[in-house]
Amino acid sequence: MTVKLYFAPGACSFVPHTLLETIGEPFEPVMVKLHKNEQKSPEYLAINPHGQVPVLVDGGATITQILAIVGYLDAKHPQLGFLPKEPLARAKAIETLAWMNNTVHPTFTHVFMPFKYSDKPEVQAELKAYNAQLYRPMLAEIEAMAKSMNSQGREFLGGAQFGPMDAYALTLLRWGGFAGIDPASFPALWAHVQKVAQLPAVARAIERERLQLNVYKPA
Amino acid sequence: MTVKLYFAPGACSFVPHTLLETIGEPFEPVMVKLHKNEQKSPEYLAINPHGQVPVLVDGGATITQILAIVGYLDAKHPQLGFLPKEPLARAKAIETLAWMNNTVHPTFTHVFMPFKYSDKPEVQAELKAYNAQLYRPMLAEIEAMAKSMNSQGREFLGGAQFGPMDAYALTLLRWGGFAGIDPASFPALWAHVQKVAQLPAVARAIERERLQLNVYKPA
Repeated sequence: MTVKLYFAPGACSFVPHTLLETIGEPFEPVMVKLHKNEQKSPEYLAINPHGQVPVLVDGGATITQILAIVGYLDAKHPQLGFLPKEPLARAKAIETLAWMNNTVHPTFTHVFMPFKYSDKPEVQAELKAYNAQLYRPMLAEIEAMAKSMNSQGREFLGGAQFGPMDAYALTLLRWGGFAGIDPASFPALWAHVQKVAQLPAVARAIERERLQLNVYKPA
Repeated sequence: MTVKLYFAPGACSFVPHTLLETIGEPFEPVMVKLHKNEQKSPEYLAINPHGQVPVLVDGGATITQILAIVGYLDAKHPQLGFLPKEPLARAKAIETLAWMNNTVHPTFTHVFMPFKYSDKPEVQAELKAYNAQLYRPMLAEIEAMAKSMNSQGREFLGGAQFGPMDAYALTLLRWGGFAGIDPASFPALWAHVQKVAQLPAVARAIERERLQLNVYKPA
């Protein structure tokens, strides 16, 4: 049975989307329109009660959460090296992915969807401004990872092969544009993201999601 | 060389703390006093620049992030079954741990450390109140997991053996007390947490951290 991926354009579901394109087997991409609140429809909540993307459906199995989907796809396609095999290197990769997922990502959520944390417009405005400031030094940390990748002569953030860290880094830097952060202010990361965007598999995901890589608008 | 664990009493470092006690090999527990801001000292920031617990040091390796440490300890001690081996069951376990880590845990952080999200006292007060309300239905989800564990005749949340999900569930329910939530209002989870707390390995971690399991004070 074909694997199904529920995704929303530009959301973190971009990570498994690029992995599925890299795997290269047929899969069914199902677009969820967040601006139409489709993720809160009874049909979607029956698939994922948390009303979030991504969701991977494989036969009778439904898997949510980036880290779970990444581990699952890595176990099914070990030859693609989405995650390192050696336990310590693997732990260091998971460490970075977990930090992106539980710290960088939710910091941006405070900027982009502050209503998740408060129902008061004035509180939401404060959260937006304060967390946009927190977001920049986090991108600077990913910039440092891109620099050390370059100085160590590695092709990708996780090693010799494209993987979830590259796709998540692209997504987080792209989101920065919505928080008023010029991607060019992180030159090593921006160069890497532009290179990654040209990989045929990643380019296919970008095209399907109709993503503009640089969404920054100077004030 | 002995494994070292940097932990703070009652923090989420309780999860790897209980796993190390379950492994049963000697390890060096290093207490970090958050109320004295030791996690922001230059010495500690040299170990973990994010200034957080837990940190696991194994020989020359330093690993942060619950999900990374759990995966690493599972790879070193596969016979203890901290995570399922079969890819789908493993993905479902990671799914729950990732949700606890990126959703339930940070929701509590808004209640307990709202200063992480805003520097304005009035915004912090709003965050505290609003997110305490969000926290309760999340504990209700873990209560549902405990009920389905009971109805399926499983001993632990993750299967037949004690694991990270049980330790995280204990931590999250305990934190609920600080958010004004009576643990007894989730009877299946509360019974499970009390049972887990009596496992010798878990009891040793509780004793070292000097934890009171029920911190709820009726208004």
